[in-house]
Amino acid sequence: METQDEIRVTFRPSGKIVEINRGENLIKAFEKAGIKIPTFCAGRGKCGKCKIKLLSEDFPLTANEKIALTTAELDEGIRLACQINPHVDIEIELIDESEFGKMRKLTYGSTIDFKLDSHLKKQYVELQSPSLENPADDLRSIEDNLVSGSQRLNLPITLLQGLSTFLRKNDYRVTFVLSDNSVINIEAGDTTLKSFGLAIDLGTTTIAGTLVDMITGRNLATGAVTNPQNIHGADVISRVNFSMNEAGGLGKLQMLVIDAINSVIENLAVEAGVKTREIYEISIAGNTIMNHILLGVNPQYVGESPYIPTFRRCQSYSAEELGLTLIPRASVMILPNISGYVGGDITSFILAYDLHKRDKVTLSIDIGTNGEIALGSKNGLVCCSAAAGPAFEGGHIGSGMRAETGAIEKIRLADDSIYIETIENGEPKGICGTGLIDIVAEMLRYELIDESGKIVKTDKPEAQWHNDRIVENEDGVAYTILQANELNNKKPIVLSQRDIRELQLAKAAFIAGIKILLKELNLEESDIGSILIAGAFGTYINKYNAQRIGLFPRHVDPEHIEFVGNAASVGAKRFLLSKSARKETDEIIEVAQYIELAARMDFQEEFASGMFFQR
Amino acid sequence: METQDEIRVTFRPSGKIVEINRGENLIKAFEKAGIKIPTFCAGRGKCGKCKIKLLSEDFPLTANEKIALTTAELDEGIRLACQINPHVDIEIELIDESEFGKMRKLTYGSTIDFKLDSHLKKQYVELQSPSLENPADDLRSIEDNLVSGSQRLNLPITLLQGLSTFLRKNDYRVTFVLSDNSVINIEAGDTTLKSFGLAIDLGTTTIAGTLVDMITGRNLATGAVTNPQNIHGADVISRVNFSMNEAGGLGKLQMLVIDAINSVIENLAVEAGVKTREIYEISIAGNTIMNHILLGVNPQYVGESPYIPTFRRCQSYSAEELGLTLIPRASVMILPNISGYVGGDITSFILAYDLHKRDKVTLSIDIGTNGEIALGSKNGLVCCSAAAGPAFEGGHIGSGMRAETGAIEKIRLADDSIYIETIENGEPKGICGTGLIDIVAEMLRYELIDESGKIVKTDKPEAQWHNDRIVENEDGVAYTILQANELNNKKPIVLSQRDIRELQLAKAAFIAGIKILLKELNLEESDIGSILIAGAFGTYINKYNAQRIGLFPRHVDPEHIEFVGNAASVGAKRFLLSKSARKETDEIIEVAQYIELAARMDFQEEFASGMFFQR
Repeated sequence: METQDEIRVTFRPSGKIVEINRGENLIKAFEKAGIKIPTFCAGRGKCGKCKIKLLSEDFPLTANEKIALTTAELDEGIRLACQINPHVDIEIELIDESEFGKMRKLTYGSTIDFKLDSHLKKQYVELQSPSLENPADDLRSIEDNLVSGSQRLNLPITLLQGLSTFLRKNDYRVTFVLSDNSVINIEAGDTTLKSFGLAIDLGTTTIAGTLVDMITGRNLATGAVTNPQNIHGADVISRVNFSMNEAGGLGKLQMLVIDAINSVIENLAVEAGVKTREIYEISIAGNTIMNHILLGVNPQYVGESPYIPTFRRCQSYSAEELGLTLIPRASVMILPNISGYVGGDITSFILAYDLHKRDKVTLSIDIGTNGEIALGSKNGLVCCSAAAGPAFEGGHIGSGMRAETGAIEKIRLADDSIYIETIENGEPKGICGTGLIDIVAEMLRYELIDESGKIVKTDKPEAQWHNDRIVENEDGVAYTILQANELNNKKPIVLSQRDIRELQLAKAAFIAGIKILLKELNLEESDIGSILIAGAFGTYINKYNAQRIGLFPRHVDPEHIEFVGNAASVGAKRFLLSKSARKETDEIIEVAQYIELAARMDFQEEFASGMFFQR
Repeated sequence: METQDEIRVTFRPSGKIVEINRGENLIKAFEKAGIKIPTFCAGRGKCGKCKIKLLSEDFPLTANEKIALTTAELDEGIRLACQINPHVDIEIELIDESEFGKMRKLTYGSTIDFKLDSHLKKQYVELQSPSLENPADDLRSIEDNLVSGSQRLNLPITLLQGLSTFLRKNDYRVTFVLSDNSVINIEAGDTTLKSFGLAIDLGTTTIAGTLVDMITGRNLATGAVTNPQNIHGADVISRVNFSMNEAGGLGKLQMLVIDAINSVIENLAVEAGVKTREIYEISIAGNTIMNHILLGVNPQYVGESPYIPTFRRCQSYSAEELGLTLIPRASVMILPNISGYVGGDITSFILAYDLHKRDKVTLSIDIGTNGEIALGSKNGLVCCSAAAGPAFEGGHIGSGMRAETGAIEKIRLADDSIYIETIENGEPKGICGTGLIDIVAEMLRYELIDESGKIVKTDKPEAQWHNDRIVENEDGVAYTILQANELNNKKPIVLSQRDIRELQLAKAAFIAGIKILLKELNLEESDIGSILIAGAFGTYINKYNAQRIGLFPRHVDPEHIEFVGNAASVGAKRFLLSKSARKETDEIIEVAQYIELAARMDFQEEFASGMFFQR
């Protein structure tokens, strides 16, 4: 590699300089400099977390930056590092994360609004060396010197085995790592200031981790990997089927997720400059089936009626038992599940936003193939799982696709034109979930879809341009978003009548779920004070459009619809850092009444009426 | 093998018949018949435990039988199976163990004189199968159905993993095995009547086990194996040295003892017709160094001043952690140690005989290379370890040997003759510990040894015959027990002046220990109400002779000197079967004050005066 092919990146205020290849992504410079910068969306320009201030020459803004950054930020020269591939030397200034507001906090839980009160304690002791006059056994000396005082310790056998030598080698000055008063490790010297934990959002699609300083509560690094189980099916049911039908299937799935968590551990530890053996606890918020598979517990009966989990309450096992690359006794805690289809991720969501303690009635939605819905306040909380199907993930949609490069994620209709935005500005390849919501909402606005969901020619004189885009072929009626000749692959991107039916089924499931939850609490839609939308997908939804198609209740002021991002991570972190939060999750799973929609007589009726649109 | 080489053994009252080889030991017939018979002394004819009634033709009595059986028993036709090697068909009757009296009870603890109150509980449940209306998770259904009621269960991960399938396969009818309220196993159907435990006396030389029915407290089988660690040294110190000086030495020693315990488990289970997976708990009473090695804990610092153990309190680990062939979570409990040289075997001894609760002052002695001595009553208990050296095990004695076939174990002098008995009536090869005590006591009686321990010619006119047996050669003065021409190997068996010095050193250590313990409690020797002698060696000592040489205090009425045999096993069984006994051992190690003789200013003085004899 020759010098002229490299450019210099100068970091302010430190003045540190590193070189990267010409045209290489700026994130590379952070890696080389050993400076951590969060890249939650893996450099897609979506999460807006890699903000920096550009001090040197300007670069053109990308579409992602226009969306992710406010005008005020743009005026200040704030940019997203992952969107910059400099060809010349560049100077940038690091931004203190804490400057940013509510959205960031909600999304990554980087500030702590609860009492730090972890089960994990470290204690440094200096023992007296024993003598004929003071012949206390080593264990007793320790018991007498720990704060808990003469309490009986039971050491893991490997620690007991080497204890005498370890104490003497370290001159009787050692630090005990205690979890709930049981010793999980013994370290040489005073290490009381180093104590780390990991909160994990174990999703069917993505596994996201937050490395936390257990003493300050500060986030040290966040990052995510794709859940590698997806090679055996995109949704939980196909994973359950794989575990049942494939010899050793459950073991394979478990190994995949354990390996993935190990890589999250490794990456975050490197990013934060922390030793993995100083990570003592992991909290994991996942759906019930993911939780079962993680522990190697047969998920079969969660997957079939009557959907019985093996466990709901918090389970805690050691890193050693699960095969995680931490110290053997590091504890891995699974947040409790509410039911077979409302898992620990929702418990975590409820915990994170105190849904069970709020005065106002709050509707909380985690949108996915199974949409989990919780509704309530301190006066009562009900929840259900709505089988929305894969429409919001682009499944069963003619031109549908996952939220990947080239997916149309935003669509706006004008009188005689269509504006689209694709992920990473890629060549358009199809429509993802948010695009689907946009196009249906926009067609409703232009009266190109009627109340029953049927594609119709609009009567609006100014929008006649769109009527020409309605075509009919052997597959039925469809609205053309992009014509074949506008695309390299010459395959038009359309929204068919059948696609709209799929969306209707999906939103009807949500609406029916919400209606039934309202009935359970004797509430009306107008009683809903606010809506919280969690999940990566939720974050990119256009809330006005979601209300227009009826996915979100229309009576709620859009101002009170909040996207809370990775709510499961936020709750998992709280669980990690607070004893009382752990107790609270036990209460939550008792308080949160699960409503099995399949067992409700009125479900079909609500589902059917939920199919309709209001223009 | 041809038929005519086999003879038939008929068991009454069952009428069962098995064949064994002509001249083979009768114990073999029991093995073939699958009938358990205790052989604690490994068929040496010593323990007297393999009693049977001979119904057919008589066989000559062995010397061992003459000692082990009472005249009444002999009249009844009672014999020891291990002493019979039939050459013709034979018919025998089994004897109900419970017929036998106090000595048996003391030795094997076959009766229970305490409340059965084990930590182990089995509970059978019939769960309701779940439904959409009753969708409780499996774990919760269990928690709600166990007697302890809605208490939170944490299952071993392997049990959790298969729980759902196991419940359904067994129609929700299963038995939980609970130890201290944590689930250690789940079994199909109702198995509440099967629950077994094992009490182990982990000796430096011998490992003895008692398989116990945890429900009735009944002994089902007892047996012993040699501690295979002896290939790396006969005493604890050589084992410590091996663990320090040999690469992987500690691991090797641990593996040996684990293997040995596994073979005890296997043998006793077969003997009792019990499945090893129905043995849920093991209690182990061993000396402090054996206990450390068993757990793989570095014993180095127990072995060197100031003799600090890593642990004293009860340690409990799972069979899985130790590599024992039981269900993974079977718990293995080590009885607590009092100090580096007064171990769990002595705690067990104290527990078994309530030494810490007695009104009368009791002196308890476990004789070996290190003799452990405990003295006291409910008003206070002190203990020490006396470094007696190997004399009582035949070590450092010119004609000394271990208590093996051919060892002279009993000696009586008459005016003009010497009567000896050897182990298993073997050709005499040397003197073991009990023989050594006998010969010195007898020579004192005949005034062939003076108060200082010097061999002298007797002045007794009727015993002049013995004076001729005193010889002097390059090794010094010696008394001839058996002359060269009386023995096949032509090597005379003698007691040399040097041998007597070794015995004096050994008994002086004991006497000094006892004296110092008496001083600690402000007692006189005459305050001692009774003496309990534990250990295999102790059982064969002639107590009158032991008093004569001063090993046992002379002021105590011989009637109050009791041989309690395997006291460690008795206490270990109690520990196994009683929660309160476990608590008591915690108290015992706090109450029993350990006196480090090496740290006492008056030890040398007491030791020196303990060297003398009183004729």
